[in-house]
Amino acid sequence: MKLYPNERIDQLYADDVKIIQSAEVFSFSLDAVLLANFPQLPKKGRIVDLCAGNGAVGLFVSKKTSAEITQIELQPRLADMGQRSIQLNHLEAQVTMIQSDIKDSFQHIKADSVDLVLCNPPYFKELPTSKKNPNAHLAIARHEIETNLTEVVQIASRLLKTNGRFALVHRPDRFLEILDELRAQRLAPKKIRFVYSKANKEANILLIESIKNGKEDGLRILPPLITYDEQDDYQEEVRAMIYGK
Amino acid sequence: MKLYPNERIDQLYADDVKIIQSAEVFSFSLDAVLLANFPQLPKKGRIVDLCAGNGAVGLFVSKKTSAEITQIELQPRLADMGQRSIQLNHLEAQVTMIQSDIKDSFQHIKADSVDLVLCNPPYFKELPTSKKNPNAHLAIARHEIETNLTEVVQIASRLLKTNGRFALVHRPDRFLEILDELRAQRLAPKKIRFVYSKANKEANILLIESIKNGKEDGLRILPPLITYDEQDDYQEEVRAMIYGK
Repeated sequence: MKLYPNERIDQLYADDVKIIQSAEVFSFSLDAVLLANFPQLPKKGRIVDLCAGNGAVGLFVSKKTSAEITQIELQPRLADMGQRSIQLNHLEAQVTMIQSDIKDSFQHIKADSVDLVLCNPPYFKELPTSKKNPNAHLAIARHEIETNLTEVVQIASRLLKTNGRFALVHRPDRFLEILDELRAQRLAPKKIRFVYSKANKEANILLIESIKNGKEDGLRILPPLITYDEQDDYQEEVRAMIYGK
Repeated sequence: MKLYPNERIDQLYADDVKIIQSAEVFSFSLDAVLLANFPQLPKKGRIVDLCAGNGAVGLFVSKKTSAEITQIELQPRLADMGQRSIQLNHLEAQVTMIQSDIKDSFQHIKADSVDLVLCNPPYFKELPTSKKNPNAHLAIARHEIETNLTEVVQIASRLLKTNGRFALVHRPDRFLEILDELRAQRLAPKKIRFVYSKANKEANILLIESIKNGKEDGLRILPPLITYDEQDDYQEEVRAMIYGK
């Protein structure tokens, strides 16, 4: 497997997956691991990962489902890393990386055809005042430069079948906006999990699953997920997501 | 102090308050304790407790503020218990119990005059299918028979000054509805705390603070509050709310 300068191969032991990463371009964060472990996965059918980055989320879920997984990533450099990781894991039959703007998703995937959409989008609003990373790869991954929450949710909803699920990881300070965007696209929020770095800290990550054309009742707030224990080590549940049980 | 048959005097040690209760009519729950400990209290001004029951919430906060506290309770039997508890604690100068439908609040309190509204309302929708307690006192306290979420939020908003706060305790399965009602009445959600009976259980109580005419940004999800530890004893934070530190 060809590696470019400053690339490395990391391993997620829990899912027995190898991933090509680069600190200069993109490396997956805990958020990707949390997202991959959050939704109820369809056993078969089609899963789409929007804003796939180096493809970590799709690779993580690949071992737990027989569904076909399509990853869409705008940045050619990241999509290429993801493509090589698919080969590295011999997952070509199950996982496909498409280098594309998510706006053009429907050139590759039919509307109303997807069972689960996963998305770990850029979190930060693109404002004149916002401090962006001078590295363009990282800035695009973190800031709403090339896409934004409204667009991500619109595309997710259009891709999904009725009763298909959308699993999103995002930040709690945009929670109200997220609920509004989901509901505007007929995605009924059904399951929310707040993630806290420590037991005595405010939530810093939000996981939310919604169902296309679902009924708006029976919303569940799942048990809190606390990332670190008092010794700053990963809590058991997070450790199991990374290293296996 | 006159006690009716089956009434008892309970003590909340943390706030050094005595409360007249009756299992047959009304006794406060942990939710009242959580609500009283949730909002930022104004040091002075006016606090209103809507759906006050036997007045527990207002009595609990009375020791932590110099604000005048007005309690509004529909049921004469409960309002009478609350009135006697005010006397029992010698709080007549600070706390007032008004027996009234909350719809008539404005006969007693000016609109746009209140710094903080507290409310522990009936949680359950009044549906033809809902199982209600055969005891009318308890049924009215738990089910939306005499009031409902929409009305409670409307009255809270109308009572509050601009930048006044509304602190509500409710159930997470009505979370979306609660957000909708608050925002429809120009109450911007600012602070949410989910309460979980155990660390590995879904949230069973929701505390939410909103600000009248506030900006909808910077929503904070506070640290999780877990009621019981693994031995089924109250966690330290809850124990301190009940028994003091």
